[in-house]
Amino acid sequence: MPLTPEQQAEVDRLRAEAQTTRRATVAALEEILYAPLPVLDHGFVRVIDYMGDDGAVVQAARVSYGKGTKKVSEDRALIHYLMRHRHTTPFEMCEIKYHVKLPIFVARQWIRHRTANVNEYSARYSILDNEFYLPAPDQIAAQSKSNRQGRGATLTPGEAARVLDLLREDALRAHRDYVTLLNEDEAGNPHDPARQGLARELARMNLTLNFYTQWYWKTDLYNLCNFLGLRADAHAQYEIRVYAETMIGTLERWVPITAEAFRQYRLGGYHLSASALAVVKRMIAGENVTQAESGMSKREWSELMQALGREG
Amino acid sequence: MPLTPEQQAEVDRLRAEAQTTRRATVAALEEILYAPLPVLDHGFVRVIDYMGDDGAVVQAARVSYGKGTKKVSEDRALIHYLMRHRHTTPFEMCEIKYHVKLPIFVARQWIRHRTANVNEYSARYSILDNEFYLPAPDQIAAQSKSNRQGRGATLTPGEAARVLDLLREDALRAHRDYVTLLNEDEAGNPHDPARQGLARELARMNLTLNFYTQWYWKTDLYNLCNFLGLRADAHAQYEIRVYAETMIGTLERWVPITAEAFRQYRLGGYHLSASALAVVKRMIAGENVTQAESGMSKREWSELMQALGREG
Amino acid sequence: MPLTPEQQAEVDRLRAEAQTTRRATVAALEEILYAPLPVLDHGFVRVIDYMGDDGAVVQAARVSYGKGTKKVSEDRALIHYLMRHRHTTPFEMCEIKYHVKLPIFVARQWIRHRTANVNEYSARYSILDNEFYLPAPDQIAAQSKSNRQGRGATLTPGEAARVLDLLREDALRAHRDYVTLLNEDEAGNPHDPARQGLARELARMNLTLNFYTQWYWKTDLYNLCNFLGLRADAHAQYEIRVYAETMIGTLERWVPITAEAFRQYRLGGYHLSASALAVVKRMIAGENVTQAESGMSKREWSELMQALGREG
Amino acid sequence: MPLTPEQQAEVDRLRAEAQTTRRATVAALEEILYAPLPVLDHGFVRVIDYMGDDGAVVQAARVSYGKGTKKVSEDRALIHYLMRHRHTTPFEMCEIKYHVKLPIFVARQWIRHRTANVNEYSARYSILDNEFYLPAPDQIAAQSKSNRQGRGATLTPGEAARVLDLLREDALRAHRDYVTLLNEDEAGNPHDPARQGLARELARMNLTLNFYTQWYWKTDLYNLCNFLGLRADAHAQYEIRVYAETMIGTLERWVPITAEAFRQYRLGGYHLSASALAVVKRMIAGENVTQAESGMSKREWSELMQALGREG
Repeated sequence: MPLTPEQQAEVDRLRAEAQTTRRATVAALEEILYAPLPVLDHGFVRVIDYMGDDGAVVQAARVSYGKGTKKVSEDRALIHYLMRHRHTTPFEMCEIKYHVKLPIFVARQWIRHRTANVNEYSARYSILDNEFYLPAPDQIAAQSKSNRQGRGATLTPGEAARVLDLLREDALRAHRDYVTLLNEDEAGNPHDPARQGLARELARMNLTLNFYTQWYWKTDLYNLCNFLGLRADAHAQYEIRVYAETMIGTLERWVPITAEAFRQYRLGGYHLSASALAVVKRMIAGENVTQAESGMSKREWSELMQALGREG
Repeated sequence: MPLTPEQQAEVDRLRAEAQTTRRATVAALEEILYAPLPVLDHGFVRVIDYMGDDGAVVQAARVSYGKGTKKVSEDRALIHYLMRHRHTTPFEMCEIKYHVKLPIFVARQWIRHRTANVNEYSARYSILDNEFYLPAPDQIAAQSKSNRQGRGATLTPGEAARVLDLLREDALRAHRDYVTLLNEDEAGNPHDPARQGLARELARMNLTLNFYTQWYWKTDLYNLCNFLGLRADAHAQYEIRVYAETMIGTLERWVPITAEAFRQYRLGGYHLSASALAVVKRMIAGENVTQAESGMSKREWSELMQALGREG
Repeated sequence: MPLTPEQQAEVDRLRAEAQTTRRATVAALEEILYAPLPVLDHGFVRVIDYMGDDGAVVQAARVSYGKGTKKVSEDRALIHYLMRHRHTTPFEMCEIKYHVKLPIFVARQWIRHRTANVNEYSARYSILDNEFYLPAPDQIAAQSKSNRQGRGATLTPGEAARVLDLLREDALRAHRDYVTLLNEDEAGNPHDPARQGLARELARMNLTLNFYTQWYWKTDLYNLCNFLGLRADAHAQYEIRVYAETMIGTLERWVPITAEAFRQYRLGGYHLSASALAVVKRMIAGENVTQAESGMSKREWSELMQALGREG
Repeated sequence: MPLTPEQQAEVDRLRAEAQTTRRATVAALEEILYAPLPVLDHGFVRVIDYMGDDGAVVQAARVSYGKGTKKVSEDRALIHYLMRHRHTTPFEMCEIKYHVKLPIFVARQWIRHRTANVNEYSARYSILDNEFYLPAPDQIAAQSKSNRQGRGATLTPGEAARVLDLLREDALRAHRDYVTLLNEDEAGNPHDPARQGLARELARMNLTLNFYTQWYWKTDLYNLCNFLGLRADAHAQYEIRVYAETMIGTLERWVPITAEAFRQYRLGGYHLSASALAVVKRMIAGENVTQAESGMSKREWSELMQALGREG
């Protein structure tokens, strides 16, 4: 269960409060504000705060007063235009803050997106709970043969069970020994008053990378789209992709027009190289083009044929 | 007058609207939301949007649920601690967006602060109004003798009048010829239908650096404090300092505890070098220290003596 | 002439010096190191320093020792792969520093690329020379009718001459009055010892936006490609595009494989939206698709048809 | 041993090569280029590349040609002035690239410095060696009583031995099971041809946080000083501080004048708040000031008294 009773009470309290504001406000996002959206076995994503809406993107693009033109259809066309031409700055005018609970190995991928603000739970300062990620059986897959950084076929139930046993056993032992090193229980009370506990900043090194951490993560709408475009991609590791997919749900509540443009130009699009563009032109003209004469490598050719829905 | 009647009507409309939100809301900042705060002769600063409050800083520092401890005194001590030790990330969790109207030469200094989001009025796309900055007579000062990038004594009224005449005359001519080059009036109607106007992206080069531009400028609380610390400093050029001072007023409305800590540790503080620290220790011990034996340069010594309120 | 005799002597001296280094070194770039490459009427670009080469990109992608694989063909395939899939971090491992002399209105566009380091000539501190940009007659164009931020047809020679006269006259007057305000000649000697000159930080506001400034500008290879991709684009203003094109020449000397991939995937490529991809698939299948049934706006349809070399 | 024989051979080969360059070159840094400087039990820092020297800082500050003034004494005064007044941009003109091998829990602290470029060894793609950090016995310390994120007294030899046994045992088991999950040896050969190995991106989650990773890390001189100032501080965790201290050694070779200024103004300095400055003034005037009347909190008072070398 991701939230403790105290945390749940705090969420309930915050959700029950209502303030009056002159700021742009988005009802669909307010609905889920503060509420944990579950991800993986113990993780979650919560929207904690936000600033701006689709109208703020339009306003920035027009650098004019108020909400610019009144017609929603024109706003939509402008937002699509901005996304298509990668005009990034108007999307930077909106900001969102999340509270995320996630396994450490996922946090290590996530943090590579540098244009964001982060405050993470500190295991120098506090004690990490005994919560670690175990993949669901249908996610326990073999190393891919074709992609050195991907997954292949799902393992058999018997093999998956063995994997889970090993992961669980090692994580449990790691935490048990972590607590032994600290000589404390999770509330910070010493187990053995005669012994001194190891410093927290040292003891934490005994934990495995599937333990959960948490952080506040804040970014602007442009950098959020970048993050989601990369991490909701089919090539992203499943364990970060499910966070990205949950966050796309929050994007759709927050800025529905931008979310639509994001699907149209980023998630669903395809970038043609100069050679690929030449190939496409010839194919439209009815020519039968082969990889050999395309000027493209086999790998790039195969990517293009896949995007065009043709056999490579 | 900084706002056109249409703009003023838009501001009035936005200020009259009220939404309900579950977000942290700051009444003192809501009071002035959207309203132009005048700066220089035609400029202004308007707060357009914000996210977070002093509580968000505390929350991020604690990476805990909700508002953390309930006692305001503890929050205050924590925020002061964070500012004193330059723990920057909790302050990054708050964000503010301004609409600013400012002379181009001020915009050129301002934009050097890179950790911010900007959308500027485009003179490639639109026509700049005939609005330019002229210093008030008491700001018309001679080149400083001691500081190559500062001002010295105020000029005499007669000299100041001559300066103003020259600046005004050249700016008026620059804009008149700009309009001639465009062959348009400010509403975009051609003056002489038989002639083609020069492209806006070219014509704008004829304007002088005191013409006003405007932009949306958005940053987080940490980078705002950096900006204000540098630009509200006595060494900053007067024309940007008055913007910073107006914005410190908005800081005090928005995050009063952070603003207090900012005054205590940044605006009012002094950084001692290793040598200066050694000098201070000896002075406290009653020694009479001289520059020659301090290991400090004359310039640094003089800065220290000034900070300590002693004759150099 | 962009360089003074003193500057030219300094360039000659630096170019004559040779050091021994164990660092990766690129002979083709060393050839032009420090030498000014002329741009516009008084501007230039000089490569002042660099770090890394194509091999550093490969090395970072492999996070392995030394130069990775020995075969150039494999390095080339890897760099193309990285560029195609927008794997940005290996390109960040190379760095380049330029010295650029450019008109202020170009500098204002350029500085919007925030991920770079800049030190600009300070007109608070020093006096700007009497050097301003005047467009060549074939660049003096009318406002575009179809693109609010672009140029249309070239003006007639008579009109162009009138434009040039006006621009020249106003710039000359602006500088003459600037010097009058300063009460100094360009070497800093007072014209009239009985008068005090206006502070430099104020006097500079009288200059027009076509005056030349200069700066050191340093960025990494990834952000350089971003800059060049946007500023060498046909939609960029001519006056910044010529700088970008000159810098592409330095890119080709420095990292020839990356430059080739940059042309292939960035300059010469085209990004298909989800709708455009569906249209292309249908066209390849021999269907006759119309804008009305494409789900695309007229503007986007027209952009696609142009990219495919078809009449819109 | 940090380097494999193949890696050592590569280092030797690179160190034996010499190129001719016109770039600024620093002999003292060239001496150690590519050579691993050992840190902790299996880690290292290697300088891989650099750009610029103390002269480049001066050049940027002067935005002038060549090396600016010829006198080293003037350069030194200027660099000290820039550091004292936190003029950051001239220091951004120098760049350095390191190859670092470090425990994952150290990497997690390090990566919080966002203004840097990073390429890390990928455990999605490759297999991590069986190398993990174990503290030296004199570093095995109890949790501090006074500082929740610090270390207290060193444990007794007996306790330290128990800690080491536990850490070693768990790390060995974690790696043994990691290899079992992968069904591969470290060269990628399957142990049991009849079984499929778990995907690498999953198996890695079984490793503990003291396993070593490695990365290329590149930053500019200004951000390097920020990193070193924070991480060489006495409050930094020992395991990252030793990296920072080793890197200060490379700083001193690379830019000796900047390194001296860094020691003077950053490492050895102390920042006085407004209240602390008032206290210092009164103490210099011979007054006996107490915490109660200082306007400072007990904690801040105690920090100040410690900095002034007085009993709190």
